[in-house]
Order: sequence, then C-alpha cells, then structure tokens
Amino acid sequence: MIEEIKITRSIIKNAVDELLDNLDVDVIVGGGGPAGLVAATYLAKKGKSVVLFERKLSLGGGMWGGGMMFPKIVVQHEAKEILDDFKINYTQEEGYYVASSIEAVGKLVAGCADAGCKMFNCISVEDVMIREGRVNGVVINWTSVETAGLHVDPVTAKSKVVIEATGHPLEICKIVEKKTGRLNTKTGKIIGERSMWAEKAESEVVENTKEIYPGLYVCGMAANAAYGAPRMGPVFGGMLLSGRRAAQKIDENI
Amino acid sequence: MIEEIKITRSIIKNAVDELLDNLDVDVIVGGGGPAGLVAATYLAKKGKSVVLFERKLSLGGGMWGGGMMFPKIVVQHEAKEILDDFKINYTQEEGYYVASSIEAVGKLVAGCADAGCKMFNCISVEDVMIREGRVNGVVINWTSVETAGLHVDPVTAKSKVVIEATGHPLEICKIVEKKTGRLNTKTGKIIGERSMWAEKAESEVVENTKEIYPGLYVCGMAANAAYGAPRMGPVFGGMLLSGRRAAQKIDENI
Amino acid sequence: MIEEIKITRSIIKNAVDELLDNLDVDVIVGGGGPAGLVAATYLAKKGKSVVLFERKLSLGGGMWGGGMMFPKIVVQHEAKEILDDFKINYTQEEGYYVASSIEAVGKLVAGCADAGCKMFNCISVEDVMIREGRVNGVVINWTSVETAGLHVDPVTAKSKVVIEATGHPLEICKIVEKKTGRLNTKTGKIIGERSMWAEKAESEVVENTKEIYPGLYVCGMAANAAYGAPRMGPVFGGMLLSGRRAAQKIDENI
Amino acid sequence: MIEEIKITRSIIKNAVDELLDNLDVDVIVGGGGPAGLVAATYLAKKGKSVVLFERKLSLGGGMWGGGMMFPKIVVQHEAKEILDDFKINYTQEEGYYVASSIEAVGKLVAGCADAGCKMFNCISVEDVMIREGRVNGVVINWTSVETAGLHVDPVTAKSKVVIEATGHPLEICKIVEKKTGRLNTKTGKIIGERSMWAEKAESEVVENTKEIYPGLYVCGMAANAAYGAPRMGPVFGGMLLSGRRAAQKIDENI
Amino acid sequence: MIEEIKITRSIIKNAVDELLDNLDVDVIVGGGGPAGLVAATYLAKKGKSVVLFERKLSLGGGMWGGGMMFPKIVVQHEAKEILDDFKINYTQEEGYYVASSIEAVGKLVAGCADAGCKMFNCISVEDVMIREGRVNGVVINWTSVETAGLHVDPVTAKSKVVIEATGHPLEICKIVEKKTGRLNTKTGKIIGERSMWAEKAESEVVENTKEIYPGLYVCGMAANAAYGAPRMGPVFGGMLLSGRRAAQKIDENI
Amino acid sequence: MIEEIKITRSIIKNAVDELLDNLDVDVIVGGGGPAGLVAATYLAKKGKSVVLFERKLSLGGGMWGGGMMFPKIVVQHEAKEILDDFKINYTQEEGYYVASSIEAVGKLVAGCADAGCKMFNCISVEDVMIREGRVNGVVINWTSVETAGLHVDPVTAKSKVVIEATGHPLEICKIVEKKTGRLNTKTGKIIGERSMWAEKAESEVVENTKEIYPGLYVCGMAANAAYGAPRMGPVFGGMLLSGRRAAQKIDENI
Amino acid sequence: MIEEIKITRSIIKNAVDELLDNLDVDVIVGGGGPAGLVAATYLAKKGKSVVLFERKLSLGGGMWGGGMMFPKIVVQHEAKEILDDFKINYTQEEGYYVASSIEAVGKLVAGCADAGCKMFNCISVEDVMIREGRVNGVVINWTSVETAGLHVDPVTAKSKVVIEATGHPLEICKIVEKKTGRLNTKTGKIIGERSMWAEKAESEVVENTKEIYPGLYVCGMAANAAYGAPRMGPVFGGMLLSGRRAAQKIDENI
Amino acid sequence: MIEEIKITRSIIKNAVDELLDNLDVDVIVGGGGPAGLVAATYLAKKGKSVVLFERKLSLGGGMWGGGMMFPKIVVQHEAKEILDDFKINYTQEEGYYVASSIEAVGKLVAGCADAGCKMFNCISVEDVMIREGRVNGVVINWTSVETAGLHVDPVTAKSKVVIEATGHPLEICKIVEKKTGRLNTKTGKIIGERSMWAEKAESEVVENTKEIYPGLYVCGMAANAAYGAPRMGPVFGGMLLSGRRAAQKIDENI
Repeated sequence: MIEEIKITRSIIKNAVDELLDNLDVDVIVGGGGPAGLVAATYLAKKGKSVVLFERKLSLGGGMWGGGMMFPKIVVQHEAKEILDDFKINYTQEEGYYVASSIEAVGKLVAGCADAGCKMFNCISVEDVMIREGRVNGVVINWTSVETAGLHVDPVTAKSKVVIEATGHPLEICKIVEKKTGRLNTKTGKIIGERSMWAEKAESEVVENTKEIYPGLYVCGMAANAAYGAPRMGPVFGGMLLSGRRAAQKIDENI
Repeated sequence: MIEEIKITRSIIKNAVDELLDNLDVDVIVGGGGPAGLVAATYLAKKGKSVVLFERKLSLGGGMWGGGMMFPKIVVQHEAKEILDDFKINYTQEEGYYVASSIEAVGKLVAGCADAGCKMFNCISVEDVMIREGRVNGVVINWTSVETAGLHVDPVTAKSKVVIEATGHPLEICKIVEKKTGRLNTKTGKIIGERSMWAEKAESEVVENTKEIYPGLYVCGMAANAAYGAPRMGPVFGGMLLSGRRAAQKIDENI
Repeated sequence: MIEEIKITRSIIKNAVDELLDNLDVDVIVGGGGPAGLVAATYLAKKGKSVVLFERKLSLGGGMWGGGMMFPKIVVQHEAKEILDDFKINYTQEEGYYVASSIEAVGKLVAGCADAGCKMFNCISVEDVMIREGRVNGVVINWTSVETAGLHVDPVTAKSKVVIEATGHPLEICKIVEKKTGRLNTKTGKIIGERSMWAEKAESEVVENTKEIYPGLYVCGMAANAAYGAPRMGPVFGGMLLSGRRAAQKIDENI
Repeated sequence: MIEEIKITRSIIKNAVDELLDNLDVDVIVGGGGPAGLVAATYLAKKGKSVVLFERKLSLGGGMWGGGMMFPKIVVQHEAKEILDDFKINYTQEEGYYVASSIEAVGKLVAGCADAGCKMFNCISVEDVMIREGRVNGVVINWTSVETAGLHVDPVTAKSKVVIEATGHPLEICKIVEKKTGRLNTKTGKIIGERSMWAEKAESEVVENTKEIYPGLYVCGMAANAAYGAPRMGPVFGGMLLSGRRAAQKIDENI
Repeated sequence: MIEEIKITRSIIKNAVDELLDNLDVDVIVGGGGPAGLVAATYLAKKGKSVVLFERKLSLGGGMWGGGMMFPKIVVQHEAKEILDDFKINYTQEEGYYVASSIEAVGKLVAGCADAGCKMFNCISVEDVMIREGRVNGVVINWTSVETAGLHVDPVTAKSKVVIEATGHPLEICKIVEKKTGRLNTKTGKIIGERSMWAEKAESEVVENTKEIYPGLYVCGMAANAAYGAPRMGPVFGGMLLSGRRAAQKIDENI
Repeated sequence: MIEEIKITRSIIKNAVDELLDNLDVDVIVGGGGPAGLVAATYLAKKGKSVVLFERKLSLGGGMWGGGMMFPKIVVQHEAKEILDDFKINYTQEEGYYVASSIEAVGKLVAGCADAGCKMFNCISVEDVMIREGRVNGVVINWTSVETAGLHVDPVTAKSKVVIEATGHPLEICKIVEKKTGRLNTKTGKIIGERSMWAEKAESEVVENTKEIYPGLYVCGMAANAAYGAPRMGPVFGGMLLSGRRAAQKIDENI
Repeated sequence: MIEEIKITRSIIKNAVDELLDNLDVDVIVGGGGPAGLVAATYLAKKGKSVVLFERKLSLGGGMWGGGMMFPKIVVQHEAKEILDDFKINYTQEEGYYVASSIEAVGKLVAGCADAGCKMFNCISVEDVMIREGRVNGVVINWTSVETAGLHVDPVTAKSKVVIEATGHPLEICKIVEKKTGRLNTKTGKIIGERSMWAEKAESEVVENTKEIYPGLYVCGMAANAAYGAPRMGPVFGGMLLSGRRAAQKIDENI
Repeated sequence: MIEEIKITRSIIKNAVDELLDNLDVDVIVGGGGPAGLVAATYLAKKGKSVVLFERKLSLGGGMWGGGMMFPKIVVQHEAKEILDDFKINYTQEEGYYVASSIEAVGKLVAGCADAGCKMFNCISVEDVMIREGRVNGVVINWTSVETAGLHVDPVTAKSKVVIEATGHPLEICKIVEKKTGRLNTKTGKIIGERSMWAEKAESEVVENTKEIYPGLYVCGMAANAAYGAPRMGPVFGGMLLSGRRAAQKIDENI
C-alpha cells in the first residue's frame, strides 16, 4: 500500500538531508550546462565532494538545442575521449564527430550522477561569500523567488572552491567583480567575448579555464567570456575539454 | 582546423536528414516526459522505428522537480525493474525506492537514445492526421512559432501508431476529441483526473494505458487524466510502468 | 561568532522538521486571512494540532487594506469580544468599533502564533485528498511553482478536517466541487455571493459556517460565497465571528 | 442594524482624519519592514509622534519568508532583549535563537501599533522635502498610482526627522543623493552593499545606523547598503538592533 | 507664502468632504462618457443631487477619438439643441453638424460641473446595493486597486436611482443580471448590440433609455447594448439625446 | 436619414483637412496638459495660428488626478485671474483657491477650443526639424504606432515656434539636447528637477518659461525640470501662469 | 529641393483621397493573405472596383513562413496556371511545383496592385453593415486602436459584396454569426475545420468557396474552417484556386 | 493525389538545400527592407551570389506603413529610374512621384526574387565572423529562439562581403563596433542620426553608403544613422538610391 504522508516525508527528508549534509564541501559548481557537468563529474570521480546548483528546472543548458534548434552537436578530435567517457554515441565526419545534442545532455547528467556529484535544480546563486580575499562559498535561493518577484532572504553554502559555469551570463563573476572590483584578468574586469570564431574559441577556452579570483574558477563559455576570447558556437568539444581542465586544475590545488 | 561552414552544414544536414528519414515510422511519441521516454525506449528495443517529439527545449517533463522542487522521487516495488533497466541509483526505504529526480531524467534520456529512438525537441504536435477513422500521423511545428505568435503553417509526420504522453495537457487527445467527437472512454470524452490518491493512481494508470482511439495510445498521467483516474503525485513508479505497458501493447499490435 | 552554515542548517532544519512533524494533524486551514487566523487560533487554544497554509508571502488577506485602502475596519458589537481576545485596540462610534486594519492583522497573526498553530506561507493548496467520501488532507506546492509556470509535482498533508478560508476564490471548494460534483449546498454546487448587503452578510456568515463536504468546513467570505449569501464589505465582525464559529463546530466534532 | 453609508463614512473619516492629523510629526518612517517597525515602536514608546508609510499592502518586508522561504529566522544573543520586548517566542540553539518568521512579523506590527505609531500602507515615498539643507518631510502618493501607470501628483507630509528603512532599494536615500549630490558617507554617494557576511553585517549595521543627511537617518539593510557593509542574510538580530539604535539616536537629537 | 502641509490638507479634506457629503444622493451616474455627462448635467440643472463616478483618470469616454482617431464627431439635427446648450461649436454640412470631438468633451465636462454635479474619477463601481428588489446604491473602489491586483474591500454609496452609462461594457447591468437573474428586457438578460446601423441605432437609443431594473436606468451605448439595438458609430447625437432622455424620465420619477 | 458613408467621409475629410491646413503655422504646442492648454489659448486669442498635439487620447495631463487622486487642485492668488478667464469655479480658503481638478480640465479644453486653437490627440512628437540652428517644426506620428511596436515612418509639421509642454518627460527638449548637444541652460543640458518645494517651484516656473533653444520654448513642469528648479506638486497656479507667460513671450517675438 | 510639408500633404492627401474615393465599391476583401489577394486580383482584372483591408502592417498572411518556417510552398498541378498568371517561379518535382514562399507573397501583392485593387493595411474589420438581410459593407478601424487598448469609434465602408479571407480567425463570419445567428452552412453556424488532410482540404476548399450569407463570400482557409472541411497545410494550391473561384462566382453575380 | 509526407520532405529539403548551398556566397545582406532588397537585386543581376536574411516573418521593413500609416510613399526625381526598374506604378506631383507603399514592397520583393537572390526570413544575425580584420560572414539563428527566450546556439554563414541594411537598429554595425571597437567613421563609433531633414538625408545617404569596416557595407537608413546624417522620413528615394549605390560599390570591389 502506498501511504502518501510517508512518501511526502521521504521525498522532503531525503532531499533536505542531502542538501544539509552538503553545505560544506570541496567544490560548488554554479551552472548545470555541459562544462559544469563535466567538471563536476571528473572532480567527483577523483573523490572530491561536489555540489552543483542549476537555476533552471532542467540541467543541460545550451546543449539541448544543438545549432539553431537542429539537435546535433559537433565535437572535434581532441574531445573524443570525453564523449567516450560519457558513452555518448557519434558518427564520424571528415575529422569531426557528430552526436545528438539531446542524448549528449542525458549522458552528461547520467555520468555526473554516477560519479557521485549532488545536483540541485531550481536554485540560483545570488551572491558569494568572500573571506580574507578568497571565495569560500555561495549564497543561494530558489530561482522562483526571483521569478515571482518575492522579497525573501537567501541562505549560504560553503566550499573550498567555486566553479563558475553559468556560461554567457557569468553570474558569479559579475557578483565578484562588482563586490571586489578586481578579477584575475588583464583588465581586472570581465572582458566580454569576442565575435564567434570556432577554431580560436575552442583552443582558447582550455587556456582560459583558470582561477579568476582566489577560490573561483571559470570554465566553458564563461571562461571565454571572462577573458575576452571568441564566442563558441555549436562545437561543443571545447566546452567538454574546459570542464575536464577545470577538474584537473582544482584537483591539483585542493 | 575547425571550418565553421562545414560544421554548420554538418549539424543542419545530419539533423534534417534524420528528421526526413523518420517522417514515416512505426511509432510517434508525443511528449518527452518519463512515460513517453520509457515507452519509446522499450519499443525501440523491440526493433520498432520510433520518433519522439517534445515541445520544450528540454526533455524530462515533470520529473525534474521531484516533489515540490525537492529533487527526489519515490518508486514502488513493482517498478524497481525499470529503475534497474535504466541503471538509475536508489536507496531503499520501508518498501519504497528513493532516487534523485535529476539523475532519473538523465538516465531515461540516455537509455532512450541508446535504444535507438530519434528524439526531437522544440517541436509541438499541432494536429493529427486521421485517415479512415484511424490516427496515422501528426502535424508538427516549431513550438517557438506559437510562442512568438507567428502565423506559420506546420508540416506532417506519419506513423502506424501515435502515443499520447503529454501528461495533464492531453494535447493530442484534445485535438482528436475535438475533431472526431468520440474517444474510447466511458463518456466518449476526456473524463479528467480525479483528486490525488497515490495508491489508486498508481494501480489504475497501468490499466488505463490503452488505445483511446484507433491508432492513438495514452500512457502516463495522460492515461489517468483521460479515463478519470486519480491524479498522480511524486510517486513515479506508475508512470514508468505505464510507459512499459504502452510499449508491450503496441508491440503486440503492429 | 556567527557561523553561516550553522544558521542555514538551523533555519532549514527547524522549518522542515516543523512541516514534517505536522503532516498529519487535526486541522488544516487553507488561507491566512482573518477568518482562517481566528479559526486556527481558537482551535489551537482548545488543544487541537493545527496547520495553516497561506499562498501569499504575507498573511492577513483582504484585511490589510481596510475599506478602499483607507486602513480602518469597522466591527459590530457582537464581535467585540474577539477584538478583546486578540487585544486589538478600537474606538467606539455609535454602536460600532473602529480599529486600524494594519494593527488588526498584526494582532491576529500574533494571537494565532501564541495559540500554537503552525503557519506556513508561500504554499498553495493544489488539490485535496478524498478517501471514502471524506476530505482527509490536502495536496500542497510552493505557490511560486505556479507563478513561475514550472511543471513540478506537489506533495500531501493529512488531517481530520480541512477549513476552507480562502475567501472569494473558494480554492478548495472549487476543487471538491469539480472532483466530486456534489457539495452540501442547496444546489450541490457553489452558489456564488449575492450583492453586498452588510447587514445580511454579517448575520448569514455565521450560519453559513458549516461542513460543506464531509471533512471540509467553510468560514469567512468563503462561507457566504459558497452558500449564496450577500458579499461582505469592510465590516469585519462577521469574518471574525465566522472563524470562531468554525472552531466551535469542529471542536465538537473531532 | 448595520448602516452601510455610516460604515463607509466611519472608515474614510477615521482614516483620513488620522492622516491629516499626522501630516506634521516628529518622525516619519519610510518602510514597514522589521527595522522600520522596531525604530517606530521605540520612538513612539518614548513619546514621539511617529508615522510609518509602507508601499506594499502588507507590512513586514523581507521577514515573512525567513531564509529561502523556510519561515524561520535566527537571532543572535545581543538582540534577545528585543525579541522579549515584542514577546516573540523562540527556541534556543547553540547560542542562537530560532523564531517563526511569520509570528515575528505579527508581533512587530502588533507592538508598533500598541506603542502608538500611526501606520499607513499602500503609500510610497516619491520625493523628499529639503529646506535649508535639511530633510524636513516626504512627498507621498498611492503606490497604485505608479503601478497602474497613472499620471497623478503627490502630496506632502512634514516631520523633524525621516527614517530610511526601505532596505536594499534605499528609496529615500536615492532621491536625496540624486537631488543633493551629497550624502554623509565616505564617497558622498550610496556605496552599495558588499557580499553577504553575516557576522560582519550584523555588527556593522549598528554602527551604520546614523544620520546620512541632515534630518535623514538610515537603519536596517538600508544602513549597510548605504555605507558599503556586507549584505545581511536571514539573521535578523542586526535588523532589530539597528532599528532600536535609530530610535535611540533620534530620541537624543529631537 | 505657500505652505505645503496646508495645501495637502486642503486638497484631501475638500475632496473627501465632498465625497462623504454626497454618499446619499438622488442620482449616482456610473460612467463619465458623453451620455453620462449629459444625463448628469440635465438632472443637476433640475436641482437633483448628482454624483458621477468614472473608472478612468479622464472623463469623456469614447468621444475623444472621434471616428477612427480622426477627432471629429457628427451630430444629427435632432441633437443640435444639446450642442447649443453646451456651447459646442460646429459647422453645418448637408443636414449634419460636424464638431471637434476634443472640444465636445471639454464642453460636456465644463457644463456638467457648472450644473453642480459632483464628479469623481479613478473610481470603479464593483457591485450594487439591492434592497427590496430595488437598486439603491453602488459599491465603489479605487480602479487602481483592481489594476494593481490588490485585495482590498470596497465601500458603498447610496442613491434613489443609479444610471448605467458605462457604454459597451455595461458594467452595472452585468452585475445586476448576474446577481438578480432578471432585467427588464425581452429576455430578462442583456441582449447585446446588433451590427452597426447608424440610423436605427440613433433612433432606437432614445426609446431604449429606460429603467432596466427598479432603480437602475440605462442610457447611451449601454442602452442599445442592453436592449439589442444596433451599435452606434461616430454619430454622437443619439448619445446626447439619450442622456437628456434619461434625465427627463428620472426627473419625473423621483 | 443618416447615411453612413457620408458620415465617414465627413469625419475623415474635416479632420484631415484641418490637419493639412495647419501643417505650417505660427505655433505648435507639444503636450495638452494645463500649461500647454493655457499657452495655446492665450496665443490663439492674440490671433496666432496654433496647433496642439497630445500623445494620449485625452487632454488634461496630470491635472485630472488633483493630489494623490483626490480630485481637487489648489491655486494661489497670482493665478486667480486665469481661473476667471477660463470660468473655473473655486472656493476660497486662507489665501488659496480650491477647485475641482476635473472641472478645471474641462474648462481649459473648452477655452482652448473657443480661442481657435486646433487640437489633435493620439499623436506623438517623435523628432523636431532644425534648420539653420533653429527649431522650425516637429516630426509627428500616431502614438499607437509606437505603442503597438510597429515600424512606420512619421510625417512633419512646420511652425515659427514650438512649445515644449510635455511636463516631466521633456520629450521635445530631450530630442533637441540629443541631436544638437546644446540647450540654453547653465549646463547646456537638461538639468532635471530638484525635490518638491511648492513655494519655490511656483515662483521659479514663471522665470524658467523661456526660449531654451532658438525656436523652442519650455513652459509648465517642463520648464522647471529643464532648468533644475524644484518639482511642482498639486498647486497648479504656477502651471497656469507659466502657460500665460509663454504666450506673452512668444507673442512679442513672432 | 525637397519640401517636407509638401511631402506630408502629398502622402496624407493621396492616401486619404484614395480611401474616401473607395468607400462605396463593388467588392471589399477582408484579409490580405494569398486567397484574398488572388480573389481581389481576378475581380479587379474583370473591372470591378475592389478594396482590400489587412489588419497587419504587412500583407501575405501565413504564406511568408512556408512550412514550419522553411520558406517554400508546394502547389499542385491544378493551380499551376495561377502561378503563371502571377509570374511566380517554381521547380517541378514529381507532380508538384515548389516555389519560394517569400517570392510568392511579393508576386501576389505586385499582381494585385497591377490589377488595380486598392490595398489598405493596419486596418481591421470590427463589424459589418447588414441591411435587409444582406451584408452591404464593413465597419473599420485602425488595428492599433485595439492593440493599444484605446476606446475609439470606427467608421464604415460600403460594397455590393464582402469577401471573408481572414483565414482561421474567420473574423467577419464570426461577427455575422453572432449578430444574425444564421449562416448558410449545414448547422447555420461556423462548423470549424477538421484535422489536416491535404488532399481533401485542397479539393474541398474550392467547393466551399461560396456565399455564406447574402452578400458575404468565404474563400481560402476561411472557407474550409466555416464548412468543416479539413485544415490545409503548406500546400497552397487550394488557397489560390479558392481565391480565383471566389472571383468567378462574384463576377457572375454582381 | 497529394501525399503529405512527400510534401513535407519537398518543402524542408528544398529550403534546407537552398540554405546549405548558399552558406558560402559573394554577398550576405542583413535586413529585408527597401535598401536591402534593392542592393540585393542589383548585385544578383550582376551575377553575384547573394543571400538575404530578414529577422521578421515578412520582408519590406518600414516601407509598408508609408507615412504615419497612410500607405503612400514619395520618391524624388533621381530615383524614378529605380521605380521603373521594379515596375512600381506612380503618379506625378510637382516634381515628386507618389506610389502605393504596399505595391512598392511587393514589387521590390518580386524583383529581388527574379534577380536570383536567395531570401530567408525569421532569421536574425546574432554575430559576425571577423578574420584577419575583415568581416567574412555572419552568425545566424532563428529569431524565434530569441523571442521565446530560449538558450540555443547559432550557426554560421560565410561571404566575401556583408551588407548592413537593418535600418535604425544597425544590428550588425553595433556588433562590430562592440567587438572591434573601431568603425570607419569620423569617431570610430556609430555616430547616430540627426533630426529629420528630408533634403539633406536624401542626398547624404548616397555618400554614406560605404564600407564601414573591411568587408561590411552600410546602406539605407543604417548608413545615415552610422555616419550622423539626418533621419529620413517617408521619402523613400534615398533608400532606393543607397541600395543601388551599395550594389555598385561592391560590384567594383569583389
């Protein structure tokens, strides 16, 4: 027999306990698009405790729509290994790999879960915690609080490192820039992405995956946008590589 | 070197060819929530050609949010096998299984892709094709055409069978009811769901998974809504079982 | 020293525990306007376990605005005792009592809390649980889920009796009427309020405070709207008396 | 017998007379959140004539929602006395006090009314009156005039001192900054709040509670936002202390 | 010297006193378009106490825009006298009179004020008062309360007779129809206007100007809409004649 | 008999001919609020050809709402003569005159029409014509083109002088400032109004009524906003005096 | 030299004269999509005076978007002649003709103009004129009046016959059905279109092109929607044939 | 017999092949208003491969509405030849030519198609491709992706030259200015248009038709807006001449 109150308790208790047990972790990832999912996965695989917060109801970010709503993505050779790691199917085409953008999202989410990362959706990062010149946590709230125009205070979550993987919006970096006035870029500010140039974007994104402020790493589109590299298009290899690179760098440092 | 025009061509050509090659299939599934994904997966596993159209950018429907945005779902014993089929992790709790709602969506999408179902997002079913008293296809359009209030004609896709898996909205059944005036229910109309009663909802949904009009099957929440069964809550077992049941019934009939 | 993670845990844990501990109570009140607050207070004073759900962020309903945004209310002699019970200040004027509508809300909320009722805001009643022809609980969700247009499943809460105190919208009665087809009114349906007639409205509201469906009581404006009595204006005495009456009736029956 | 026209006259006349009798007072408080309510209460207790204008229909501001819509607040030891002054119930937890955010609002409003402060809702401060380099009143209008996009002139209200307690929006300070170009801060401008840091925010808010322009005091979140202190979270002790501090300072000066 | 607080008091006191002194009058006119203004003017000229409530900020209704935003109106011979009564300038053209629609509104408002009618704007009629089968007043509120979606109770105003002059919307008749179920028309319901036919519309509107429910008169477009006569176009003679006719009929009866 | 096509022709032809005959006039007034109406009236009385364009459907601007939607205005002694010129009724009160804001609008429009000014509503000034460093006309369009978001080109109207009487928005001055970079103010820019100070505002508005750019005069609220004088409240005397002053200055110069 | 006022006069005068000269014509076409344009063209070619009113800024209706925003249309053999008449380019493909949907719109508008039809855009048909049981004209207004929510009266235009070519919305038929209660269909009402079935839709649309009420003809999608035929997709042949058929029938009858 | 799936395939395949075959062309025109259509036509006539992308569903831009929604345009003598080239009918009037704005759009689209230009609608230019300091393509997406607020990546199209013909919005130039910081104008930035001055605007637009950045030409309103020339009104000659001029210049250079 199905007892409704038991079910209600089960759901709320399990979810809330998981949240409360993970309010002080190694890594908080802001943004559940491809770069964030890849970074979270590789970090969790290396044994780090990782929590990912996504502001929307669904994870996957800009990958769902492929290019211009044609649900395919193209991945260059360098990132083939990551496709394989996540068991994403592809066909080969003159040096590229073409995959279903929908399958790719499903597999990234699946892989991230299997690696042990805790994922929470419908939650936005409203602010960061900065202590002694270092980001050491985020301030979170239900996204719907903002959508519904309510005035409700947020709560906090702590971590050794925060990853900014919110893509173009650079939501976390913008807060840090505004509050501290100084990021680790040439200008000290978010530089903003240049016009789309797939080739450059794909190669630069890996170099731009770095610590932009003590305790805060950027990866994926956010990295190129922050450091003034070209915009990325529907070639998703750089995004995946950048996610993996972020994981490597952080793993070496915490 | 990454050549942008080649990438553009690759993406559009692969996606469009996949669509054009699948305009005349065994089964069209309308709605990419859990019931639709499960039905599509088991049918594809049995060798049927299956196309799934989802109106939103992301698949997964109401499963992402768990219960009340606490991202956990509860599944009863009868559906455990399906969790295992899709490799969804769970913990056990007094006769139920508790899983991450986010992981569950990822795994369902991943499994559906691996089974060979072709999934298209951002596409709405606007109308059905009825020939000789039988649904034999759907009329589709970009969802964004409707969202943006544009006046643009749709195109058509054909199939032996259509599955209505759009949940509460019952988008396809509503069209068929309006256009034919007669569904295979007690009243000949959509009856509408009764108040939430998890236990009944979970058991009735499997029986209600049937051919509601020649060529049109309902499954998941849509089934209960059509036949006047209670509303389902965050117990997702019935949804999964209903998807599998739809696949079995259709497999026997086409 | 203030430790943020401890504070976050404290707030979430205390609030969630209070909710989980009160998912199976004597009385659930839907709506935190004056009638609901009064009913909840007197019931809690009599030792019942009472939970109140309000869909908005703030409680107080239509009382805040007095009449036409002039923040005063008028209360007739019969309800003076309730003003006194809640320690609401007033001035006397030819047979009426005039009070600040703002103070009145504050005092009702304060009194309700002191009586031991558990109040939750930002939560809507989406559906009811009906078992064996009797309402025995409600189906709840964050109001913001609906406001933000998200597709997220609700959870459930159980009680011996539910009080409909949502005013004009009659949110709970509408669900019961739609799902069961039969309320305990002359027509079996919600009758709808007649034109404003303060005198009649004030006297009828007390008689109309009754069990409109097994397990479901109406009070306040909802009572008059359900039973076809005149609409109430900025005379708030009837609202208060109706809330108290609901408490008395329920106390006798559970 | 209830005579409607008499009631209409009673409500309008009482409310309007109260407004007209209080157009020239000791203190005008802009904003009915916790800091404003506390400041108004302590000032009224000390015999000052105090009028509070709140732009929304309901008072209580950001306190209703506790933290992340979990309706609890945490208060540190230093502010316990204020909880007691307002008779707010709490439980103790490792050095903090946890209270219901809903009860807290009710009690603050109730206490403010009992102290004799006149509260008006639905009214916005559109502008200030500045005479001889000193704020000596505010310019008010129905908030709904602005919401409905109407072009309607405001009216004025006079006072010895104005308290800015509108929180983040700093509505009054923004007007004064724009019109006079010079506030009493390090930069002469509103500095803007830093990232959330509960501990610092809580201690700095009391120091930041001061006269920011002759005749204009800031308190609560507004104080920290104006002077560039960290943002406050769901720890509400500082807010209460700041409100009390504003009352003390003003009491010494007028 | 201009003293602001004195001015504020003057404006509010004068306006509120005028409202309070006119809450029990001979005639309440709902709607400040041409028909309402004319009816109010002729009644006031005959010594009746008349109050007019207009829901918008500006009076004049549909007359401002002439025909298709070309600001001219045409008036037939029968209504010339009314143009002269209000001193509206015109040019003659093959049996018609052409006037500026803008001037016409200004002159109607001016004439109405000179006749002694009290006009209030920004106020909607939300409901009527019906006592012993007779309309004897209206229930009013700020229009902005509704526009801003606030939940605020209305107040009441009493009169011997109410004139419905809200045009197409038939706001008052709709309430009476809904609440009483029976108007004095062929069907007992609002019939709805027929297609535009200037000639018929102009002649029928005068006959249709009558008591549609005890104590409630219709005039202008509302009269034709209620009784199923053709729609009126930019010929405004019938509107003026209907307003005058309403005044005559009411003058004979109260 | 009423012939509809004849009526249509009459209305359109008369309105369009009036517009086409007045595309090259002495004075164009932008804005039909009190200052614009007064200026237009006195100029027309002095024999100037005057056209007034109002963006809204109704003329009267911010005067309709009196103060805070209480429909009364206050006028100081200096402007009594203008009230008399327009036959606006008033009562006297300690040195001020109190009038109905609704009557006042009606009388201003009536007087403006009687003086011979041509008034057009629903038309916005989109741009100005500047030739040899002098404003010599305006560029106009239906306001609804902008409201409906259509892309439609405007047309032009010529005059010796243009009066900016759009109040706060300063619509015409903003265009001239943006296009020429230099207005005849201390800073060369629009300065923006200071906080409300009725007394100063009322006296300064008359001095600020001047030629702000060759061929362009400001009057009313626009004048104070342009020259950095205090904001005006519901004292409308200065508005009327400024309108008359503009008429005098222009009459001397063209 | 370009004189702006002369240009303004030229544009307004030419357009208005063309409208005023065509207020009493043989045929009024409501709707400027493909069916309306074709009907208007063939009628104008036969020497009828024809006026076409389109509610949008652009003509062409649903043809611009081809199928699902892929800008191609398919035309069957029977309509090839019409493509040739309008000089629309096509390629042949297994019995169909494929053309650019964009070119097709351009050519239809071009042909319609060359045939002498007068086209007006931005104008909606708000109502019809019915005299002695026959439609003999329409009531028109700027569409933007409705879009901007203004209350402005329309004007009238007369004709021997009106063509309903507004497609799905059936704007004119809906008015006639509502106002007369009886159309010339099997049910006397608009039947509504059946599900899409290109073949049937294409053949039935020509038969359904008929006089649906004395003086009112339907053609194109409107014809199928009115008579309950299947919905048409991106095969545009039937639309063109229906337009030509309407022209033939009307030509025989007036 | 009409086979729906064949039609669907035909439409999608033809449209997509045309797009894929034209992803690497001589000229890409951004914007389908009159200037863009004329430029595209003359270039295509000279044998260049030309693709035009229009963000709206309909081409024609601001020309549809003539002046102030009066659907006529005026063209000066210099552009008469272009009217003749496109077979646009006109009447002569004191040195100008007056044409129907609706016919003009139809004829421009028709001529552009006949010349062989490929036109795509519903597609926006989101970004440009810049390689070695030269614009060599654009980044495109469905406009509806943006309208519907979806997060979907764009694709790319390549060309020797890009023409900016988006009018006022200067969509492409704004991107280039933002991304490169340097346009070929006096200031290096977009200067912005001056006030309307038909004569100057018409003559300057031809000179301003030039290469504003290597590989990027401006024409039509965009040219005047970029170089700080006066705004153009409903005189469309300059627009046509500018389009032709752009074609000439580009033809000489590629």
